[in-house]
Amino acid sequence: MFTRTTQVEIQFGDCDPAGIVYYPNYFRFFDNATAALLSAAFAMHKRNWLEHFGIAGIPMVDTGARFIKPSRFGDVVDIRSEITELGRSSFSVRHTLLRDGEVAIEAHEKRVWVVRNEAGDIRSAPLPEDVRRLLSAS
Amino acid sequence: MFTRTTQVEIQFGDCDPAGIVYYPNYFRFFDNATAALLSAAFAMHKRNWLEHFGIAGIPMVDTGARFIKPSRFGDVVDIRSEITELGRSSFSVRHTLLRDGEVAIEAHEKRVWVVRNEAGDIRSAPLPEDVRRLLSAS
Amino acid sequence: MFTRTTQVEIQFGDCDPAGIVYYPNYFRFFDNATAALLSAAFAMHKRNWLEHFGIAGIPMVDTGARFIKPSRFGDVVDIRSEITELGRSSFSVRHTLLRDGEVAIEAHEKRVWVVRNEAGDIRSAPLPEDVRRLLSAS
Amino acid sequence: MFTRTTQVEIQFGDCDPAGIVYYPNYFRFFDNATAALLSAAFAMHKRNWLEHFGIAGIPMVDTGARFIKPSRFGDVVDIRSEITELGRSSFSVRHTLLRDGEVAIEAHEKRVWVVRNEAGDIRSAPLPEDVRRLLSAS
Repeated sequence: MFTRTTQVEIQFGDCDPAGIVYYPNYFRFFDNATAALLSAAFAMHKRNWLEHFGIAGIPMVDTGARFIKPSRFGDVVDIRSEITELGRSSFSVRHTLLRDGEVAIEAHEKRVWVVRNEAGDIRSAPLPEDVRRLLSAS
Repeated sequence: MFTRTTQVEIQFGDCDPAGIVYYPNYFRFFDNATAALLSAAFAMHKRNWLEHFGIAGIPMVDTGARFIKPSRFGDVVDIRSEITELGRSSFSVRHTLLRDGEVAIEAHEKRVWVVRNEAGDIRSAPLPEDVRRLLSAS
Repeated sequence: MFTRTTQVEIQFGDCDPAGIVYYPNYFRFFDNATAALLSAAFAMHKRNWLEHFGIAGIPMVDTGARFIKPSRFGDVVDIRSEITELGRSSFSVRHTLLRDGEVAIEAHEKRVWVVRNEAGDIRSAPLPEDVRRLLSAS
Repeated sequence: MFTRTTQVEIQFGDCDPAGIVYYPNYFRFFDNATAALLSAAFAMHKRNWLEHFGIAGIPMVDTGARFIKPSRFGDVVDIRSEITELGRSSFSVRHTLLRDGEVAIEAHEKRVWVVRNEAGDIRSAPLPEDVRRLLSAS
């Protein structure tokens, strides 16, 4: 399925008093990686594809991460993100964070494709056919 | 003018590899302190006063801080916030962050009272008379 | 096993353009909740128990969360944190975030008890007997 | 004096419910920009120059910003950072954040060159001669 690798340089302020990345920041990196993944698949910026597909967003419903090696200020890490599953109105992503070519974190997430109804509430909506096609591309 | 003191307990994740609060986080604390200051002055939560006064927000136009002493994980600090000036459509706040009763940071900020016009753009609006009165109260 | 509930007031800056809490911030809340949980169990602040037990920290090795309902600026949520498992040199915590008494997030985490050796590297160490006893207390 | 421009792409999570960058995040961007500025001047990564010069850091003593135009998710902004003053043991930086070629923020900061003494406390130290020379280079 669709895959994309992004790069993150760990900044001083991403790290905690133990000198390693404060782990909640990894989820920020992964959120950015998913935005980049879909932007690459759809060949337009997230700002544009939200509007293009008429959706309110892709809220997270489930995420998790296994931390194998810590990273430090100044490390440049690769995040390889790949679509792993397409549901009716949801999709799943796996993120593999690599440092010096070794797996440092394995993470996964499941998100929902949501639209806003006339009352302004959000509800899930089926993934459009072209979204399925673009996210399935290898 | 109106004054209010709030308390913040410094968390592990607020600090950087030098073991002290990562300074951008102080601006987050001060933003929260201003929200609490106005909520106390208006006797309602920010979520409600934004709607009550029909405003789009109170965006920051100018802020600064002088860092005198660092704070660390586990410190409980007081932030004394006071309205220092009321303009036609703006107001200024001074924040004094105290640790163990000593001044650790002196900060100031100027914010604008903004509404959204029919096109959805924001523009400054005069401070309502009751806002002036409530923020002037000592 | 040991349980403790902490409260968090959602701040404006915790939320994203969709108007709901930006989910990486929940992991920050949960990290603070675990620090509070252990501080309550050990009857001393984390700053002190790190030193008291001579450990370098309690790094995260695995965490995950299921997001059931979103929370917004101004919501006050309860986080009920409980020790769910004690390994030889690790422990697990379950966090249940409640909004208006309803479960909004279910999260879990596994952390390791680590010490620093003479070379300055960290390695896992067995949970001390009194730590096991205090974390097992109901 | 020494000048360098870095680029930042505004991420979804950098923005608040008003849809614009949550202003404390700009100070994070500026902190990263100063690290990049000095890394360029010293031709080595911050992680290395901290060690190379034997310093404990460059803590902020005074900073401020004037916010002229907001930026939004997806904007790519330029931060032009320049050394503006060299004190005995401090230096000042001016950051100009440009969006679409127009000035959106003007910020300034003053930092101190600090070393750690034998007791582990930090104190300011004179800027080394080669640091003065490299930061003065135009």
